[in-house]
Amino acid sequence: MKSPLLNVEGIYCASINAGIKNNDDLDLSVISLTKGSVTAAVFTQNIFCAAPVLVAKNHLQNFPRALLINSGNANAGTGKEGIVNTLRSCEVLANELDIKAEEVLPFSTGVIGKQIDLSNFESGIPRAVSQLAIDSIRDVAKGILTTDLFEKYYSKKIKFSGKEVTLSGIAKGSGMIRPDMATMLSFIFTDIGASQKELQECLAIAVDQSFNRITVDGDTSTNDACTLSATNQSGVKLDECKDEFQNALNEITKVLAQMIVKDGEGATKFVEIKVGGLASTKDCLEVAYTVAHSPLVKTALFASDANWGRILAAVGRSKVTGISIENIDIYLNKLQIIASGEPSLDYTESRGSAEMQKSEITIRIDLGDANTTESVWTTDLSYDYVKINAEYRT
Amino acid sequence: MKSPLLNVEGIYCASINAGIKNNDDLDLSVISLTKGSVTAAVFTQNIFCAAPVLVAKNHLQNFPRALLINSGNANAGTGKEGIVNTLRSCEVLANELDIKAEEVLPFSTGVIGKQIDLSNFESGIPRAVSQLAIDSIRDVAKGILTTDLFEKYYSKKIKFSGKEVTLSGIAKGSGMIRPDMATMLSFIFTDIGASQKELQECLAIAVDQSFNRITVDGDTSTNDACTLSATNQSGVKLDECKDEFQNALNEITKVLAQMIVKDGEGATKFVEIKVGGLASTKDCLEVAYTVAHSPLVKTALFASDANWGRILAAVGRSKVTGISIENIDIYLNKLQIIASGEPSLDYTESRGSAEMQKSEITIRIDLGDANTTESVWTTDLSYDYVKINAEYRT
Repeated sequence: MKSPLLNVEGIYCASINAGIKNNDDLDLSVISLTKGSVTAAVFTQNIFCAAPVLVAKNHLQNFPRALLINSGNANAGTGKEGIVNTLRSCEVLANELDIKAEEVLPFSTGVIGKQIDLSNFESGIPRAVSQLAIDSIRDVAKGILTTDLFEKYYSKKIKFSGKEVTLSGIAKGSGMIRPDMATMLSFIFTDIGASQKELQECLAIAVDQSFNRITVDGDTSTNDACTLSATNQSGVKLDECKDEFQNALNEITKVLAQMIVKDGEGATKFVEIKVGGLASTKDCLEVAYTVAHSPLVKTALFASDANWGRILAAVGRSKVTGISIENIDIYLNKLQIIASGEPSLDYTESRGSAEMQKSEITIRIDLGDANTTESVWTTDLSYDYVKINAEYRT
Repeated sequence: MKSPLLNVEGIYCASINAGIKNNDDLDLSVISLTKGSVTAAVFTQNIFCAAPVLVAKNHLQNFPRALLINSGNANAGTGKEGIVNTLRSCEVLANELDIKAEEVLPFSTGVIGKQIDLSNFESGIPRAVSQLAIDSIRDVAKGILTTDLFEKYYSKKIKFSGKEVTLSGIAKGSGMIRPDMATMLSFIFTDIGASQKELQECLAIAVDQSFNRITVDGDTSTNDACTLSATNQSGVKLDECKDEFQNALNEITKVLAQMIVKDGEGATKFVEIKVGGLASTKDCLEVAYTVAHSPLVKTALFASDANWGRILAAVGRSKVTGISIENIDIYLNKLQIIASGEPSLDYTESRGSAEMQKSEITIRIDLGDANTTESVWTTDLSYDYVKINAEYRT
């Protein structure tokens, strides 16, 4: 059973259908942050950012008081008109909340290359604001979804000197990208007190070991964003319990990231690629991503085929120097399949196949004696991946 | 109609079934190079080379007199025993031809991770040698195939001072890799006279604009190799007609490379990704490969969906600095779809779709004013790609 999504003091939410999607699903969400809140954020590294990402980046420095999220129209590839429209939607929300437009962070996901219809925002935003409530965060977890098959949320409490700090995170994403129906979004809320700089550092660390370690198809979107807002309502300051807070935040982002992979397009397997024994994190990740993105490894995973030759070949083409075949050990879960670069003596096809049948698989690749070990999480490549992505618009 | 594969003076070929494959297809080929021949070669960049690649690299400096190619067993992932077996197979051929084992270049493609059965080589090689003939090169074009759907060969004559030079090339490959059934192999023969250094330079240039520009799935194999052997029988020296020879060699390797893409696993489309306007070849290729490898672009190609958002997003995540959205133009064949980063005014979905229906498509991406333009060739990602690679061993 999923653990419940906890309310966070100072966070007021609402999600409605504003007519942005072509159906009756929730598509417009508003999150109001109590006065004194502080927000950190990370955004897509894609050179081509959607209009709301550009605006949100600019507004981040102004101690945002509200988030505005639409899940029907990505507002990407929409040029200057897209930016003008985004700024106007921020104004509408600012007027309702009696704050400044520059204090609104806009986010979006959905169809690409189409201008938003402002009338949906003008009529929907007042309605959403009238419904803002502390216990409506689950509505937003649902309201930010596009083609996701399930809601993604996770909460965690930490105790410090007899006081409690709550962290709650929500996310959407199904496949790292579909530029038609972009994107990965995640919003995390806490009642701790913190400076923007402290929060930004914590968020960067958390994202690096979670959202930056997942890949479904290697594509990244124009709309990805993750925010962390702190309302300072708990009576606890971040610098009093930095390690505990970081650990809780890491757990939340990791759980949400893995949920996105599990909801990956056409995914039938959840796969951890764990690479160790190289001197640097960068080198471990380079090998891990090369294996995770190999269509031949991914189709073998789909077929439950313990095809170690494909894993070996992917390791061999990663752009990391100093790997020697005689130092490579590979394991499927706990079963060793390659020892010192050759098939392990006690390995048999049937034992390999038994591991590959499982729905959760760890491929561990040891490449030497150095201490660094890094993981990325991915899925297999199935007929359904092709089907979903080939038929989406046709 | 295919142009014929021309014989090359000084090149004697034979291909037989030696029982290495599980069927009656040709699987063992011998090519004898007349005394005084010179050979250049390029090999896979994969760190993990198959045993024959390691041996061939070592033997290349000894003015090889014969090529030995088996298309049933890749002899990859076979450790030291694989190398011992390869050396023994070279000895068997050397004895038959009265040359040294170090003058034999071995090549292989086929099942990975299985030791070769030397008895097939011991019985097959004498039989192949007894059949060597100048007009059997077509047999070898057939004998090196694995899962290829058609034979790949191309010849070209150049005239110089009343004399003729012949170049003939053969290749196999269907998908850049399947480590089970590796690989891309190409063997090119000419009767020109040349030093090893001259040939190596010409081959490197030719491969760089052909085999190094094709990608089906981004995977490279442990067995890839391409050789160029010159027999010095034409009475023409390379330094007399360097440009003409280079052009002919470029044409041969490009035609063979494109044939491999057209025979790509599950391919329904032949796609050129042409990127221009950046300052360096490296940057153009980085963008081109990022688009060519994007599963979302490839599934859109399969669906004949003119999904420009996916192309734009792939360009945006390529690791090239200095790209601005306002400078990007994208064309499908001659139809402009993106102008200065936004949908072109005269673009319609139906016009885009009409271009995407074609079986040969050029995606041209212009990113600025610089002069460099580079192309890579690729395929779409179809159900059949997943089927072929998921079901291959199951």
